Amino acid sequence: MKEKVILAYSGGLDTTALIPWLKETFDYEVICCCVNCGQGAELDGLDKRAAMSGASKLYIEDIVDEFCDEYIVPCVQAGAVYEHKYLLGTSMARPAIAKRLVEIARKEGATAICHGATGKGNDQIRFELGIKALAPDLKIIAPWRMTDVWTMQSREDELEFVKQHGIDLPFDAKHSYSRDRNLWHISHEGLELEDPANEPNYKDLLVLGVSPEDAPDQPEYVTMTFEAGVPKTLNGKAMKVSEIITELNALGGKHGIGIIDIVENRVVGMKSRGVYETPGGTILMEAHDQLEELILDRETMETKKKLGSQFAQVVYEGKWFTPLREAIQAFVESTQKYVTGEVKFKLYKGNIIKAGTTSPYSLYNESLASFTTGDMYDHHDADGFITLFGLPLKVRALMMQEVKNNNK
Amino acid sequence: MKEKVILAYSGGLDTTALIPWLKETFDYEVICCCVNCGQGAELDGLDKRAAMSGASKLYIEDIVDEFCDEYIVPCVQAGAVYEHKYLLGTSMARPAIAKRLVEIARKEGATAICHGATGKGNDQIRFELGIKALAPDLKIIAPWRMTDVWTMQSREDELEFVKQHGIDLPFDAKHSYSRDRNLWHISHEGLELEDPANEPNYKDLLVLGVSPEDAPDQPEYVTMTFEAGVPKTLNGKAMKVSEIITELNALGGKHGIGIIDIVENRVVGMKSRGVYETPGGTILMEAHDQLEELILDRETMETKKKLGSQFAQVVYEGKWFTPLREAIQAFVESTQKYVTGEVKFKLYKGNIIKAGTTSPYSLYNESLASFTTGDMYDHHDADGFITLFGLPLKVRALMMQEVKNNNK
Amino acid sequence: MKEKVILAYSGGLDTTALIPWLKETFDYEVICCCVNCGQGAELDGLDKRAAMSGASKLYIEDIVDEFCDEYIVPCVQAGAVYEHKYLLGTSMARPAIAKRLVEIARKEGATAICHGATGKGNDQIRFELGIKALAPDLKIIAPWRMTDVWTMQSREDELEFVKQHGIDLPFDAKHSYSRDRNLWHISHEGLELEDPANEPNYKDLLVLGVSPEDAPDQPEYVTMTFEAGVPKTLNGKAMKVSEIITELNALGGKHGIGIIDIVENRVVGMKSRGVYETPGGTILMEAHDQLEELILDRETMETKKKLGSQFAQVVYEGKWFTPLREAIQAFVESTQKYVTGEVKFKLYKGNIIKAGTTSPYSLYNESLASFTTGDMYDHHDADGFITLFGLPLKVRALMMQEVKNNNK
Amino acid sequence: MKEKVILAYSGGLDTTALIPWLKETFDYEVICCCVNCGQGAELDGLDKRAAMSGASKLYIEDIVDEFCDEYIVPCVQAGAVYEHKYLLGTSMARPAIAKRLVEIARKEGATAICHGATGKGNDQIRFELGIKALAPDLKIIAPWRMTDVWTMQSREDELEFVKQHGIDLPFDAKHSYSRDRNLWHISHEGLELEDPANEPNYKDLLVLGVSPEDAPDQPEYVTMTFEAGVPKTLNGKAMKVSEIITELNALGGKHGIGIIDIVENRVVGMKSRGVYETPGGTILMEAHDQLEELILDRETMETKKKLGSQFAQVVYEGKWFTPLREAIQAFVESTQKYVTGEVKFKLYKGNIIKAGTTSPYSLYNESLASFTTGDMYDHHDADGFITLFGLPLKVRALMMQEVKNNNK
Repeated sequence: MKEKVILAYSGGLDTTALIPWLKETFDYEVICCCVNCGQGAELDGLDKRAAMSGASKLYIEDIVDEFCDEYIVPCVQAGAVYEHKYLLGTSMARPAIAKRLVEIARKEGATAICHGATGKGNDQIRFELGIKALAPDLKIIAPWRMTDVWTMQSREDELEFVKQHGIDLPFDAKHSYSRDRNLWHISHEGLELEDPANEPNYKDLLVLGVSPEDAPDQPEYVTMTFEAGVPKTLNGKAMKVSEIITELNALGGKHGIGIIDIVENRVVGMKSRGVYETPGGTILMEAHDQLEELILDRETMETKKKLGSQFAQVVYEGKWFTPLREAIQAFVESTQKYVTGEVKFKLYKGNIIKAGTTSPYSLYNESLASFTTGDMYDHHDADGFITLFGLPLKVRALMMQEVKNNNK
Repeated sequence: MKEKVILAYSGGLDTTALIPWLKETFDYEVICCCVNCGQGAELDGLDKRAAMSGASKLYIEDIVDEFCDEYIVPCVQAGAVYEHKYLLGTSMARPAIAKRLVEIARKEGATAICHGATGKGNDQIRFELGIKALAPDLKIIAPWRMTDVWTMQSREDELEFVKQHGIDLPFDAKHSYSRDRNLWHISHEGLELEDPANEPNYKDLLVLGVSPEDAPDQPEYVTMTFEAGVPKTLNGKAMKVSEIITELNALGGKHGIGIIDIVENRVVGMKSRGVYETPGGTILMEAHDQLEELILDRETMETKKKLGSQFAQVVYEGKWFTPLREAIQAFVESTQKYVTGEVKFKLYKGNIIKAGTTSPYSLYNESLASFTTGDMYDHHDADGFITLFGLPLKVRALMMQEVKNNNK
Repeated sequence: MKEKVILAYSGGLDTTALIPWLKETFDYEVICCCVNCGQGAELDGLDKRAAMSGASKLYIEDIVDEFCDEYIVPCVQAGAVYEHKYLLGTSMARPAIAKRLVEIARKEGATAICHGATGKGNDQIRFELGIKALAPDLKIIAPWRMTDVWTMQSREDELEFVKQHGIDLPFDAKHSYSRDRNLWHISHEGLELEDPANEPNYKDLLVLGVSPEDAPDQPEYVTMTFEAGVPKTLNGKAMKVSEIITELNALGGKHGIGIIDIVENRVVGMKSRGVYETPGGTILMEAHDQLEELILDRETMETKKKLGSQFAQVVYEGKWFTPLREAIQAFVESTQKYVTGEVKFKLYKGNIIKAGTTSPYSLYNESLASFTTGDMYDHHDADGFITLFGLPLKVRALMMQEVKNNNK
Repeated sequence: MKEKVILAYSGGLDTTALIPWLKETFDYEVICCCVNCGQGAELDGLDKRAAMSGASKLYIEDIVDEFCDEYIVPCVQAGAVYEHKYLLGTSMARPAIAKRLVEIARKEGATAICHGATGKGNDQIRFELGIKALAPDLKIIAPWRMTDVWTMQSREDELEFVKQHGIDLPFDAKHSYSRDRNLWHISHEGLELEDPANEPNYKDLLVLGVSPEDAPDQPEYVTMTFEAGVPKTLNGKAMKVSEIITELNALGGKHGIGIIDIVENRVVGMKSRGVYETPGGTILMEAHDQLEELILDRETMETKKKLGSQFAQVVYEGKWFTPLREAIQAFVESTQKYVTGEVKFKLYKGNIIKAGTTSPYSLYNESLASFTTGDMYDHHDADGFITLFGLPLKVRALMMQEVKNNNK
């Protein structure tokens, strides 16, 4: 009996070419697995394509809700933003996919998993660290790094290769941006973006929405509620997280929200430039942050922001299934107990304008903040506070004066 | 001979009332000092007002360029943003003012400095820590905290008080937002802002610009250059930093840039809500950050971001004249040597849209980032990298498998 | 009916004098509460002393096990050491005591709590923040800060005062070190320690053990086991945590372990110098740390060390009952799941010498660490790793060469 | 003309075997370079050994003072300790050596540098990152990773190989600990240390001193002074840093100081166990730290400790020649201006016992710390301080009470 390999399959040219290649090169039985994280791709007919290409089986796995609840929500709660800009759309999806691939591999008794990520990007790392952590005994096949046996250098080579193997399917030969999409975002790399001196060609580029200039002249209000850090309703209607994100994507995309253009530092030590669209995610994270402003005390917020940055790095580097990710998440969850309330925004041409926030757990206290004083606070208290708060400075200044006088 | 007190003087009702009050209460000779940080106030005739109110002397000190070069530029280079949102406009100005007040006090042989900040805010702390650090022997008089001798409770009380003292000057009795302005920003507190549930009334509120909705329909490009982290030109014209900020304020204000609405945590332990306009500063900091994206390596940038947050806290808390501020600034300066290049933005209705960045010191390397490989990099290298990068995960996963097997 | 005050009572002169003082000054009914955290004091006859002094009731509350399980163990697990030196003995006890005082206050329907901590130290802050967090409505009475109504300036004044109030009890009038003791440690301040230029007079000073010079010439081995971060056995015998600490105190004290002499930074902004004895605690924390070395991966350990330092600060500052303490503790607990194993030490004249550590969850892998290679690792992998790990440096160096050449 | 390679040469078997191997395998002209960092090796006759082995030239470079002033002093000032335990002896030396190798390579017009570090350790990374940063164009040859052309597997193979090449030199065939020594420390790995369950065999292991048990029964005092963070005198005698370390090594070694036994996390992702002797370094760092306790304010010290840990990581990972190392060093240097004073210790059987510290810049103020109050401080001030310091807790507790009441 042949050994089985699980192939992370999209139905596109790259992963289709891998089916005959895996059979020829390693004599594997190839089982395809297409994991749906909300990439909006056409999944109908995928089984026929896989079968025609020589796969023995195709799994189509819908993990959209798992992706939302177990990956997106923890990242939103952590305020996880890589290098203070990138909302981790692709980074969160890779471990979710890796986990499902491993589950299928166990179910099928496969001995290897194959992915089509290139040898220069972050995704190879994320897939492989996910697999190593969950199934250290499984072999990982990364054809794009196997330059001795994987000899195709271009899209044309691949088209020729599948043709030779009798795979008669319609593939697009056009070169375009290199993209990755799921429910949370779409990323764009390549073409004019390769030179940071170039302004992005937004008209061609954007997929999930429009640029601020093309957005409507009329603003639109949106209201969200959260309970214990989890989004619960949108414009008054209770929804699943995946539904809220879907709806926010439509709203955000319409109003030109959540387009970022960055030069980021890849795990593999180089800078790369990309444009990301995260219309709904940007609104959701902003709303969550806005609520926390009211509810978390200064020191908890400050520490959480630092750990949130680190959480983003951990996730960006593919280290989802690690004790560190779990421990930071435990910290974050502990802070979310009272992150409950309502946030209202006005969306207008790329702007998310705050329009009111309320929470039963708000630490904002109008009588304290305003310039009258009440029972909790006396202006004299500030005297004592400043005396002690400024004591180290004053002691130091006096000591320096004394040293100066002694040296005269 | 009477002891002298230096009064931080604006010409407004509050500080005017302090002149006779200081003379009566402590029998001081009162020397007024109005420090100009670009607050845009009317300074003509200020000397007559001070004299009429009983001051023996008035200093009008223009420190705009010092404020830019020694306070603003270090904060821009540090990327200092308090609680990731507030650009520290007021926080940076207070120590600059305190320093000048101390200089005048030394020149005049004064024994005390008096300021008009209230007992609930951050400014009392910033003024007083500045004075303590520079002149620990000087007495500090904070009338608003001296509720036994300072008995005026309202604007009306103050108007009555100055009238009784024969000061016949036109003061506005209208209650408005509580504001602080300088070259870098204007802050707004009070009125509808006191309840975070309220949307700000931007039509009434804004001073330095318009809201995104009221901004022009036509975008406008702006180009800046930096040398070693210092802004040098705007739209091709060499200018002083203060001129660049002035010009950027006009541009940013026109296009609805740099308006933020936040609930922040004051030093004195309470949350307060404010709206800040920082039109030019927002553009300047974004440009500097954009340039650093190209030039700084990942780890330097990451550490700098953490220290930048801490720098912001230190400055916010009034600890400008401390060894810690100096040490963080030394770190930051060391990173700025190569922060040289050009940044182009498109300004449009509240958006700062990146339109191209270049630097001779860019670490972005198109041939590396794109998906071909060159001499510096071989796809096989990624194999080795991932093996070692993922080794801790794999060792751990194997150990856990072994423990599980042993326990069977 | 009179209002009731709960007095934190030790039976010593200070807190005894407070009983008649509280009755006279505020007309309170005074209920004494002596909370036993293992301070080793004589508790017999305490009820008679309290009654003779005019207290209406005395509670003697033994919280030793609660102190160990809910305060000490989390600190050990966090590796919480203030300023990298102080093991927080007093800091951990104060919130535990405050909690019990509040519980008694609620049970008795008291409206106030009184403590005898001075106005210069940290303990006033720890007591009061604990009370504020648990019972914000209770009044707090800190006589030592009430210099208008609390007029006793010296031990002699207090002796005179209690005598006048007919309290005929034997009190020691001798001035000695200022000390605080509980199961975990004893602290010493005052006398020769007040000048950091002085070497401590250890012969007089030490209470829980001897100095290294006075320790036995024969070393002694000790073995401990932990399960999920909790100490479980000592020299092969299962014990409660409080028993393990008691036993380790004897062992550590005998061998001159855990004496530290430091200048620390108090919360109230000044430096103070103290000597601490923590004989058992020092061994326990070292053992826990030693086990974690084997079990935690590099990044988790590194992040945990940072948060452990912060945990120490939070506890030192009296912020036990805060969301931040809870959140860091949640992080720490998440890392302790596999901190299971055995640690062996040799104790000898102040030294804790490692004598072997084992754990089923050890990540140390002898075959990996030694200089042969196996399946998990190929020397070639290091090539790829170094190429990518060093890529940012090399790209930068090449860019700098290019800039230099261009400028020639 | 043949291309030249610079070989990092020690005169031992490994690097001697590399000379003929480099000539045969690559047809290089081999220039040996032995960089002396104080390893205490016999350098006489090294030139004859190199010549006999076929090297065309031998450089013996004494960089001991450069190593002390430019590598050790910055690490001492930073308080750089890897994983809170390892004093970085080997890590600091590698970049210093790499720098000298590059200088020789430039002088000789060589095109490559060869080192004999293995493929599993940290040293290969430190050498190579140093070379890449300083001379990105130079080829690096790491024979131990070139398993296709470097076929010697054991010490016996190497002995056979050099014999075949007519190199008739006395080499030791005995297997021992794997060691690295320089002026600062010696490290030990291998043999019984490979299993963390084993107690080290200190009698055989130690080189620079004795164990605490074998140390003298008489303690010995030592006094050091520092100026601006640099050690200047030892027991009253002005000395160069290298002389101070040499002398402290003798003292510390005699008294059993500075022996540590740790499991550390290597850069290449595995744990390794080693014993380090750093007798003088341990005393020096403790003295510096002790002085900083008196001189640095709390926040500067706290931030410096964090950055010191990071500095240690950067150095451990071989990233000496990076902007981040320079920037952290700039921070540290800024804090050292006033680190001036005298420290006295008593050395006794592994213990460094503090015996008095003084500094003109001490922030310790006896009158403040003791329990009387003076002009700078009033017990009432503590009231105000605690009210504001505890305000966030109290506001939160009141809010939670209110929510609870509302929910009844």
